[in-house]
Amino acid sequence: MRKRGILIVVSGFSGAGKGTLMKELLSKYEETYALSVSATTRSPREGEREGREYFFKTKDEFEKMIAKEELIEYARYVENYYGTPKAYVEKMLDSGKDVILEIEIQGALKVKKKFPDTLLLFVTPPSIAELKKRLVGRGTETMEMIESRMKRAAQEAEGMELYDYLIVNDDLKACVEEMHAIIQGEHLRSSRNSEFIQEIKEELRKI
Amino acid sequence: MRKRGILIVVSGFSGAGKGTLMKELLSKYEETYALSVSATTRSPREGEREGREYFFKTKDEFEKMIAKEELIEYARYVENYYGTPKAYVEKMLDSGKDVILEIEIQGALKVKKKFPDTLLLFVTPPSIAELKKRLVGRGTETMEMIESRMKRAAQEAEGMELYDYLIVNDDLKACVEEMHAIIQGEHLRSSRNSEFIQEIKEELRKI
Repeated sequence: MRKRGILIVVSGFSGAGKGTLMKELLSKYEETYALSVSATTRSPREGEREGREYFFKTKDEFEKMIAKEELIEYARYVENYYGTPKAYVEKMLDSGKDVILEIEIQGALKVKKKFPDTLLLFVTPPSIAELKKRLVGRGTETMEMIESRMKRAAQEAEGMELYDYLIVNDDLKACVEEMHAIIQGEHLRSSRNSEFIQEIKEELRKI
Repeated sequence: MRKRGILIVVSGFSGAGKGTLMKELLSKYEETYALSVSATTRSPREGEREGREYFFKTKDEFEKMIAKEELIEYARYVENYYGTPKAYVEKMLDSGKDVILEIEIQGALKVKKKFPDTLLLFVTPPSIAELKKRLVGRGTETMEMIESRMKRAAQEAEGMELYDYLIVNDDLKACVEEMHAIIQGEHLRSSRNSEFIQEIKEELRKI
């Protein structure tokens, strides 16, 4: 029954543990998932490799990609462009992999509008008290940085109900399994299997 | 986050292995699921126990239940009534159990209309050829009986896309896990967690 992969957008509060979660999911189920690789105009940092961390583009190349609609979504931060190349995502989806895109809410909603089949997942800690505890616990952030993250979280929270599922990151291992179960369950949605339903109906008409 | 159970309606072609699937699911995850017990006006058969196979009612009692809207859905077959008592289902849902209702499509759609949160699952074999093979393989049915089941299947198939998920019963054990994953994943739908989202938003407003 299953053929094509599902496009998944993961967003969530900074400090919710998205990064670790993705890493665990991709290493545990590496045959099932692929992480989308973004294109950017910023310069490669040490250790970054073309096509692994990013596809590195000149500003000119990037703007041509925009013009040719070769990007699923893009945004500009400070002086640089960041975007998701369509070709790479399509190739992975066609090979049957579920492709994960880690972007924030504005990007997520753009993707969903263009590709209504996209699955939107929102990673959240069990409570805001817990989120604050984790940020303070890192010991690397000033109170000002934490407060700015909290303000950002308040903005992001406004769109939480637009996501399909909430991933409550309490226990990492349990959370990886939950996320895997949600995505694999989604493959069985009737709306994702119209072709199979048509086949069954046609078989029954022939009897 | 999780509090209340989900009401699940399971339908599917006769011969698709629904019964065995339910039995396996309920025995493997007995803490998680409860099977809804129907009320009926037919007489108990040998070995059937009140409140286990059915709640046995007189015609008069049953019609009073209808009048008082104490049934989620009901239907009349031949001379007898069959229906789903609301009180029992609500009690199980409140205790946190996911409650499974095994009924056919007309009933399923009535339940969904009354309780839009209901999860509709449709059990199907991987193909109609496979369904026919299974029915023939039983060796207990005449060709006429098989043909009548096939006609019935053709009617039921017309509503397949109205179900939320398809459970393709190919391998029993895998199928039990798929069904479990789908239902547990559903608990994490944003639309089922408005209260949690509100709590998060309020916590963030206070900061």
